[in-house]
Amino acid sequence: MHSISKSQQKLINSLKYKKYRHKNGLFVVEGIKVIKEFLNSNYSLKSLYSIADVFSVKNQTVNIISPKDLKKISFLNSPQVAVGVFKIKTPKPLKIKDLTLALDGVKDPGNLGTIIRLCDWFGIKKIVCSEETVDCYNPKVVQASMGSLTRVKLYYQDLKAVLSQTSLPIYAADMNGQSIYKTELDKKAILLMGSESHGISYPLQALVENTLSIPQFGKHKETDSLNVAMATSIMLSEFKRRTIER
Amino acid sequence: MHSISKSQQKLINSLKYKKYRHKNGLFVVEGIKVIKEFLNSNYSLKSLYSIADVFSVKNQTVNIISPKDLKKISFLNSPQVAVGVFKIKTPKPLKIKDLTLALDGVKDPGNLGTIIRLCDWFGIKKIVCSEETVDCYNPKVVQASMGSLTRVKLYYQDLKAVLSQTSLPIYAADMNGQSIYKTELDKKAILLMGSESHGISYPLQALVENTLSIPQFGKHKETDSLNVAMATSIMLSEFKRRTIER
Repeated sequence: MHSISKSQQKLINSLKYKKYRHKNGLFVVEGIKVIKEFLNSNYSLKSLYSIADVFSVKNQTVNIISPKDLKKISFLNSPQVAVGVFKIKTPKPLKIKDLTLALDGVKDPGNLGTIIRLCDWFGIKKIVCSEETVDCYNPKVVQASMGSLTRVKLYYQDLKAVLSQTSLPIYAADMNGQSIYKTELDKKAILLMGSESHGISYPLQALVENTLSIPQFGKHKETDSLNVAMATSIMLSEFKRRTIER
Repeated sequence: MHSISKSQQKLINSLKYKKYRHKNGLFVVEGIKVIKEFLNSNYSLKSLYSIADVFSVKNQTVNIISPKDLKKISFLNSPQVAVGVFKIKTPKPLKIKDLTLALDGVKDPGNLGTIIRLCDWFGIKKIVCSEETVDCYNPKVVQASMGSLTRVKLYYQDLKAVLSQTSLPIYAADMNGQSIYKTELDKKAILLMGSESHGISYPLQALVENTLSIPQFGKHKETDSLNVAMATSIMLSEFKRRTIER
């Protein structure tokens, strides 16, 4: 049985914070199923701690630890058998060719995790995020994305520069936009989603050629706008269904 | 300044649990905006506690309390100005005429809250839930539904009986179903969504005429199925967009 040292615990605990994740180039994955997906991906394992001998890892030790030690290094209220520490990958320079999602300041980790899963489902391989968007290696994002982070690449960049330079059409979600059901959608495009509270930021609005909305069928003025993950799911579905029609 | 008594605190704290909510016929709403929506709805207020004088309530006292007392009665980690206690409404007998959502054992309060918001957006007025589905007066559901609960009615019933008796076509979400993009959808129908972990339960499967799936465009076998709230958003959008086309 391996015993977690003070310095191991300190390092892993620090990975809750973006600053220390990026300083150390490391992030945390929890739970057998998701850790296995990361082990089978091109992410590199740094270290693995588990209360059960359920992993087979090449050239590396699985540290079998006590449930008490697991509690010390887990970010979950109910720790899930194992904690893996993986190395952050720096993606190659961004090239936008296919349908790509751009996120302007999405702050909620659960929303970003859900959006990563959606992109995985719909075969969207790249998400470009403004620098204010929540970090994809945030433990809650990793948890909510359920392994989809191994298949979808996230780029944190100056969105203004990216959108100015692209030759693809840019569609932005906007409450006052044209009905997505009635708008022609290019197969290769950028879909820009705004933040939960502020929508698309002012400097980006000038770069957007097409605004899209999801018509509201319930006619109550009090109804809040759809949550950004919901709106993304419906919009991605619309973009992809058109590719079948053609 | 009102001071929260021990018995008031005990009562409100107990409303975290379904048993005590239904025993007392009461539930809790938090935050100025959502409380105002409930005040303007046909829900009846039982009592209102607030640290700020921001409500105008007819024939009833707003109890101005201290932040310390608010903490005692709030279910939130960061209490939001006010706590309202409202009376549970028993809906009239269910009549299904229009597009109606049926939920078979959705367990996560956040998912149900999101689904209630979606129904509000898409003008779906009724949700029929199996008895195992999480209670809509659960504080987390109320919080996540953001006032939409005042406009969407939920019925907790034996789904088997409901589905056996309806004359409307029943569509069920199913991983192996026909592509929803390519299926004719009746405007008036029941859309049945299964639970997060088990899908549609066995006794209901026999009652379903049509199964629907959302095609997966990313071809990774590891990708988990879409979360039930995501799948619901895409499916409701599909049902409603057809009503525009026609």
